[in-house]
Amino acid sequence: MGEDMKGKDTNEEQEQVVNPWEVSAKDGGKIDYDKLIDKFGCQRLDHSLIDRVRRLTGRAPHVFLRRGVFFAHRDFNDILDAYERGEKFFLYTGRGPSSESLHLGHLIPFMFTRYLQEAFRVPLVIQLTDDEKCMWKNLSVEESKRLARENARDIIACGFDITRTFIFQDFEYVGGSFYNNMVKVEKCVTYNKVVGIFGFTGEDHIGKVSFPAVQAVPSFPSSFPHLFSGKDDLRCLIPCAIDQDPYFRMTRDVAPRIGYHKPSLIESTFFPALQGETGKMSASDPNSAIYVTDSAKEIKNKINKHAFSGGQDSEEKHRKYGANLEVDIPIKYLSFFLEDDDELEHIKKEYAAGRMLTGEVKKRLAEVLTDLVERHRLARSAVTDEMVDAFMAVRPLPNMFD
Amino acid sequence: MGEDMKGKDTNEEQEQVVNPWEVSAKDGGKIDYDKLIDKFGCQRLDHSLIDRVRRLTGRAPHVFLRRGVFFAHRDFNDILDAYERGEKFFLYTGRGPSSESLHLGHLIPFMFTRYLQEAFRVPLVIQLTDDEKCMWKNLSVEESKRLARENARDIIACGFDITRTFIFQDFEYVGGSFYNNMVKVEKCVTYNKVVGIFGFTGEDHIGKVSFPAVQAVPSFPSSFPHLFSGKDDLRCLIPCAIDQDPYFRMTRDVAPRIGYHKPSLIESTFFPALQGETGKMSASDPNSAIYVTDSAKEIKNKINKHAFSGGQDSEEKHRKYGANLEVDIPIKYLSFFLEDDDELEHIKKEYAAGRMLTGEVKKRLAEVLTDLVERHRLARSAVTDEMVDAFMAVRPLPNMFD
Repeated sequence: MGEDMKGKDTNEEQEQVVNPWEVSAKDGGKIDYDKLIDKFGCQRLDHSLIDRVRRLTGRAPHVFLRRGVFFAHRDFNDILDAYERGEKFFLYTGRGPSSESLHLGHLIPFMFTRYLQEAFRVPLVIQLTDDEKCMWKNLSVEESKRLARENARDIIACGFDITRTFIFQDFEYVGGSFYNNMVKVEKCVTYNKVVGIFGFTGEDHIGKVSFPAVQAVPSFPSSFPHLFSGKDDLRCLIPCAIDQDPYFRMTRDVAPRIGYHKPSLIESTFFPALQGETGKMSASDPNSAIYVTDSAKEIKNKINKHAFSGGQDSEEKHRKYGANLEVDIPIKYLSFFLEDDDELEHIKKEYAAGRMLTGEVKKRLAEVLTDLVERHRLARSAVTDEMVDAFMAVRPLPNMFD
Repeated sequence: MGEDMKGKDTNEEQEQVVNPWEVSAKDGGKIDYDKLIDKFGCQRLDHSLIDRVRRLTGRAPHVFLRRGVFFAHRDFNDILDAYERGEKFFLYTGRGPSSESLHLGHLIPFMFTRYLQEAFRVPLVIQLTDDEKCMWKNLSVEESKRLARENARDIIACGFDITRTFIFQDFEYVGGSFYNNMVKVEKCVTYNKVVGIFGFTGEDHIGKVSFPAVQAVPSFPSSFPHLFSGKDDLRCLIPCAIDQDPYFRMTRDVAPRIGYHKPSLIESTFFPALQGETGKMSASDPNSAIYVTDSAKEIKNKINKHAFSGGQDSEEKHRKYGANLEVDIPIKYLSFFLEDDDELEHIKKEYAAGRMLTGEVKKRLAEVLTDLVERHRLARSAVTDEMVDAFMAVRPLPNMFD
């Protein structure tokens, strides 16, 4: 290895890393989202675009739009242009089912996608990549399939419209037109290319090497002939966290070469761990996240014990100096899940000024999250096996474009 | 690159190359099959094994066995052991549908597989790798699928028992249990491993890199739940040309790691080109092969003009020195397709002694091949669309193990 290459490697080790399997900030700090936009080459989601969403949908943009949770995009304006011309589009999102139950971070793309589906009245496909998790997490095929179905319950509990939503797991759905599209994509992507995008090595197995095609093809309507037969021109919008961007950069590169539209993207920041905003939550540390299965008591304890506070060490100092909202996790979490803009502004103002204490903010957060989790649990318990079957049935959607 | 590596490369360039995409002998000579057996690590099919086949099936072994066309194997004895214990097995063979019509070399595995099916009364799956040809030959998905169905007609015309035979094309059949097994195989094979076996480079696309798993999984009964549900212990025998050995070396390496039997193999030499025995026939040169669509006149002309002769330049010299049978293509072709052992021995003896002339041998060959091709054409013309559908239908086989 020459000196130049060594220099490059050393330099890269200090940089932030964001890909579908790893999110870590530079030197243990915060993720620099501006840098990420530059590096990935996507666009910032600015106020004019959010205003346009408000105008086109005739309703208030989702909290996640208003507060910059979804902060970046690729060609979202093309989707809005088409919509304004009276053309519909379809939504595509997904999840890798690696755990029994979801945490709050997992809910974010689904809560937002549900809003988009309602606001634009468009069909939605949700991919459960049980094959990916079988390959990356070394789960058995059978266990991955079981987790996919369990996760489907949580996804359904987010309130998707069954007349417009198709949920599928790869181990069941891959085949036919979907597989034909996979081969079309694979033909356009060399091994060197996926190494460049995803950082695979020669010791990675060939399932990983070809998997990007599996995540690419739900972007194309012809992968779902039972939904979109004869609608090959339908555009696709993908709401996802920005760590998934590499898959869709590849997809957008390939799409025009095989005669398809490039999918558009709308991309979110990561939901921070309780311990602080240095990356995504870790599935291996249950105290780093709040799960939709946590009890009110567990939520309260996790927040009180583990949520990183920007408040001062003593009440006296806190009253004097106020809290540092930039690093405060309760404030961050409230900005995701407290819908009332006025109340949030009030809390931030009082807390920053030292008039509100960490304990009070944490108490309010525990209420908000307990309410959210309790509503989710109720909704999930109402999801029957028959409903799961119905969402995953390969058949036309009755109400797709009405 | 160090000197050692250069030396190795140069050395390899002189050696014979046999893999699924290239067959070329050392220095333009003949393929050295003994060396191939050593290099691949398979076993020679000896007389005791052929005698055992005769005894177990109660009928004369196929010409291709008696005359060494199928000359190598992997654990064929295990199949015979199981059969002797009263256990059945299943056959798996296939074809990459890259051309409209088949040549004689393409028929060999199917003629032999038909014999095995009849003699052992066992089920058979035939894979048409339209996905492979789409990827390697840069055919469109649609064209590859069409060719697969056309080739299915030729395969059916070989006389397979519809009550024991399932023909499938990957673009239609990949999915479900078949895809689940693909992922299981992929997880066990690194990129470095396929580079070692198949010689891929970083500029090869990711479809090629993962394709070996597609050809591997028909070896496992669980890839065909509509045929072999609950029969996970069923052994598999694969008749194929020896250039396919790399796929099944990989498959045999993986099988025990995912809880399956290793498939057994019975492997043939290559059918030589009319121009001489230096490799396989070339699809790009129609005069290198006789096609099942050739007319009697075309067959006669091809043999007379292009079949490499071991006879002498002049009749006088021929009468004096006789023919060199080692390099004579008409004799080689007759040894594949002239079933009468006595007649073949007679021709060889007379021709070698100079009493029979090249023209006479070629005339006899033209008769034999015209008869074969004419019978094939008749059989093919009787294959209806409904028959193709029936052979390719995903449903239980009525007469599988009777």
